Amino acid sequence: MAKNKSTTKLNVFALGGLNEVGKNMYVLEYANDIIIIECGIGFPDEDMLGIDLVIPDVSYLEKNQDKIRGIFLTHGHEDHIGAIPYILRILDAPIFGTRLTIGILRNKLEEHRLPRKPDLNTVSVGDVVKAGGFSVEFIRVNHSIADACALAIKTPVGTVVHTGDFKLDITPIDGEIMDIPRLGELGKEGVLLLMSDSTNAERRGYTPSERVVGENLEGIFMMNPDKRIVIATFSSNVHRVQQIIDTSVRFNRKVAITGRSMLNIVTAAVELGYMKVPRGALIDINDIKRYPMEQLTIVTTGTQGEPMSALYRMAFSEHDKVVLGPTDLVVISASAIPGNEKLIDKIINELCKRGVDIFRDTSIEVHVSGHACKEELKLMMALTKPKFFMPIHGEYRHLAANRENAIDIGIPEDHIFISDIGLVLELDENSCKFNGTVPSGKVLVDGYGVGDVGNIVLRDRRHLSKDGLIVVVATVSIEEQMILSGPDIVSRGFVYVREADELMNQVKVLARDALQDSLDHNVTDWTQLKTRLKDDLAKFLFNRTKRNPMILPVVMNI
Amino acid sequence: MAKNKSTTKLNVFALGGLNEVGKNMYVLEYANDIIIIECGIGFPDEDMLGIDLVIPDVSYLEKNQDKIRGIFLTHGHEDHIGAIPYILRILDAPIFGTRLTIGILRNKLEEHRLPRKPDLNTVSVGDVVKAGGFSVEFIRVNHSIADACALAIKTPVGTVVHTGDFKLDITPIDGEIMDIPRLGELGKEGVLLLMSDSTNAERRGYTPSERVVGENLEGIFMMNPDKRIVIATFSSNVHRVQQIIDTSVRFNRKVAITGRSMLNIVTAAVELGYMKVPRGALIDINDIKRYPMEQLTIVTTGTQGEPMSALYRMAFSEHDKVVLGPTDLVVISASAIPGNEKLIDKIINELCKRGVDIFRDTSIEVHVSGHACKEELKLMMALTKPKFFMPIHGEYRHLAANRENAIDIGIPEDHIFISDIGLVLELDENSCKFNGTVPSGKVLVDGYGVGDVGNIVLRDRRHLSKDGLIVVVATVSIEEQMILSGPDIVSRGFVYVREADELMNQVKVLARDALQDSLDHNVTDWTQLKTRLKDDLAKFLFNRTKRNPMILPVVMNI
Repeated sequence: MAKNKSTTKLNVFALGGLNEVGKNMYVLEYANDIIIIECGIGFPDEDMLGIDLVIPDVSYLEKNQDKIRGIFLTHGHEDHIGAIPYILRILDAPIFGTRLTIGILRNKLEEHRLPRKPDLNTVSVGDVVKAGGFSVEFIRVNHSIADACALAIKTPVGTVVHTGDFKLDITPIDGEIMDIPRLGELGKEGVLLLMSDSTNAERRGYTPSERVVGENLEGIFMMNPDKRIVIATFSSNVHRVQQIIDTSVRFNRKVAITGRSMLNIVTAAVELGYMKVPRGALIDINDIKRYPMEQLTIVTTGTQGEPMSALYRMAFSEHDKVVLGPTDLVVISASAIPGNEKLIDKIINELCKRGVDIFRDTSIEVHVSGHACKEELKLMMALTKPKFFMPIHGEYRHLAANRENAIDIGIPEDHIFISDIGLVLELDENSCKFNGTVPSGKVLVDGYGVGDVGNIVLRDRRHLSKDGLIVVVATVSIEEQMILSGPDIVSRGFVYVREADELMNQVKVLARDALQDSLDHNVTDWTQLKTRLKDDLAKFLFNRTKRNPMILPVVMNI
Repeated sequence: MAKNKSTTKLNVFALGGLNEVGKNMYVLEYANDIIIIECGIGFPDEDMLGIDLVIPDVSYLEKNQDKIRGIFLTHGHEDHIGAIPYILRILDAPIFGTRLTIGILRNKLEEHRLPRKPDLNTVSVGDVVKAGGFSVEFIRVNHSIADACALAIKTPVGTVVHTGDFKLDITPIDGEIMDIPRLGELGKEGVLLLMSDSTNAERRGYTPSERVVGENLEGIFMMNPDKRIVIATFSSNVHRVQQIIDTSVRFNRKVAITGRSMLNIVTAAVELGYMKVPRGALIDINDIKRYPMEQLTIVTTGTQGEPMSALYRMAFSEHDKVVLGPTDLVVISASAIPGNEKLIDKIINELCKRGVDIFRDTSIEVHVSGHACKEELKLMMALTKPKFFMPIHGEYRHLAANRENAIDIGIPEDHIFISDIGLVLELDENSCKFNGTVPSGKVLVDGYGVGDVGNIVLRDRRHLSKDGLIVVVATVSIEEQMILSGPDIVSRGFVYVREADELMNQVKVLARDALQDSLDHNVTDWTQLKTRLKDDLAKFLFNRTKRNPMILPVVMNI
């Protein structure tokens, strides 16, 4: 495919997981120009043992480094910017984003050693950036982080609108509503392709305004004048934190912040002017003892039950500053990300044991989504009037649901394209079709290692995690057909050895017999010798224990 | 505690997890008599790597074997009977339960080798079983399995009512409503302690009748005359399966069953008369090709996304009999057990990709809970009028919610006891308090091994799963201060070796240096020598890779 690309067609494809929540990297290519939209990380599946995070495979971009005109970011969430520190070791490209986005990215990049100084460019909404044959315009949208944008990309074959993550908030905390007029203008001028957020495509109606959370917090504060109030939320939700501070000030409470990421973001947001904190409203977490319980609000991280988060440590009495009890009220101002339910339940149970009152989004609206529901998604389509439509951001079922939304609003079914990672959508002024693929996929990051953990390593980790390991070591003399030392048996993660002495002795005897038998029969091929050892032990152990530990024979010849 | 037990008090305690869903074993002890209620398994937490299931620690019962008068079962779910095959290897006791419960248990026990023939006793509702100083009456309740009972236990100090798992179904499929009059009589006679299901204690109102599912299935069948209908549900929900069969028959569909546990249970339920299948209604899954799609219903397992289940195999095109496509409609007639959401989502996404229509309980009521909601829980309290109350079955937050329900209905707060595993509740006619503990806990089952996987083994498995393993092997002569062979490095689950040749060579050199240095310095203590090796390598590898593989030094002396 890569070889036969037409120079008069626009190619649009995803390198990060298009249809998996949180793994985002889109590429637009026309003739000699490439632009990249988003550069996010994904979180590992449960079976990716030991993996810290997942980034897109950019080998295609590496081969086409000379074509790359820029990386364009819609907002500052990890699933949109998190892979940049890794990608910048491989690719060189100027990066464009709004002020908060670039501010968060800059802080992040400081923690990484990079081969060269990153080329970071701050833009304002309304700005248009020229990038080869493309020009990219940043358009205000609402989301659960400030300064979020959609992108309108003028290409030689027509305009592509990429919504980023968005919702419509008519009463946003910072007063900045999604730029509906500009989206409508683009629609009038003609949009070739709309690539739209699909996260909430299954949900009816509209996503409530962020302000609703503020109103409900107000009610909670009013009803609980005697309690200390602890509120956990996502650190990047600057407006949420702003509302918590504002409400606290109105109720004469001081606000203390705990949790490293929360402190970092609040500091950055205040510096950049995205948060306004009245003088004296914030106090240091070390000073909370100086105030009565009922005059305190504590803002913290840990809404997803993360075992090292501040909320987790509070729940399990491991937090050195905050000890929770019956005079505390905890608000979990977030919904559970699928897969985290059990971790969150663990925290809730601990809080219950301590007699803490709990509010969460299952009981009262203390959280609203940052993504558009069905009606907002249709509004986006109605405004931009795209010729072709590509649902993005979401699992397959969300993309499929957004296809239904598009059909509802009158986009012909054969103008809607659900893509897949690496699949190339080819467009000109009048046509749109899938045509070929580019190399793509997931690259696993483990510690400093990027891509050095592959399927074999993961398979071994899964094997080790299930039944542990038995190492059989012996020194032999092939020449003399003799065992010189061992076999010794070392086991880990298999069975508690003190209880398995007899079993291990039997393993030893079995190993010695197998080894000696091989030597007696003049087996000099190491593979054969080791395979015999392995098979004999595996069969014996499975029969006795119904387990399949990994068996590692190490035989040395002297 | 065990030594000082009063002979005029009743002791009530849990050995299996009282406040964790699904791990159930309660003990009532008075003077020289012990009875056991439930004997269930639990499912392992995510961090219990390789563990198949969890059973209660019965060491206290083992020591008091001569006191045990019987094991009483409320119904046939795994979390109530699943541990019996393991417990019967340790304890000897007659077992009592209703017909379906004993029927399911009998099938289960056939798969296990037991030291002696189990003493299984089938009772009918209304029966009273004498057990030493206790007598146990079986009382009909409704639940998501047929033949479920509560137990009323007459003890020398008063009556204890144990609800088992229950709901109130006014229109049950088998016509058998919870025995409200008998519970009311017991209340009039006087109940000392009520131990009540708390699973749905947070939910308002009443749990809908099982019949609601039938009505909604009827609607789905009516609206989709052109589709093949595939319905996944819990195999033990005999009434659900009955409704699916009845509805299919009304719509002139044949029913094929796939999934081993589903086939087993349907066979047992039909044999025991708990299901009525009209002649010709069931067909073999191998014969589905003989019927048009729209005349078929397929009943299957896999509602929790289990990777080996029939539904999973259908979704991923691995089922050899059923290939799904746009003419199929899949109903997932169950709700997600916390922790399984991601697995279920995986199936939903695959089904979407195949163009299959999907109904699940988030869209329409195709499932109802088997547990009582707030109003039913309060009804149980109002009927039995207990002097003391102990919420059971549920996570801590559910127990706490059920305490609130009890307070609502007027049970004094100091008459409500939330217990913990091993904590002993001591009662006489007039008083109730916690007093001491008995040995208790979780015993992990891995393959044939019961209790041989402890914390050390699990810690090793976690370590191995995270960063893999490096084995360093060498043969040395301490006497000659020489390395005779090696060091050889074997790694598994650490890093893909072909990409790490250079790293492994460095490890080799480092290991040789450390070893030779120790030998040169006359280190003859093996522990010291191995620790040196381990520490040097660990430090090096962490600096280079930010990973902490398990390092196993194996050094042999010749």
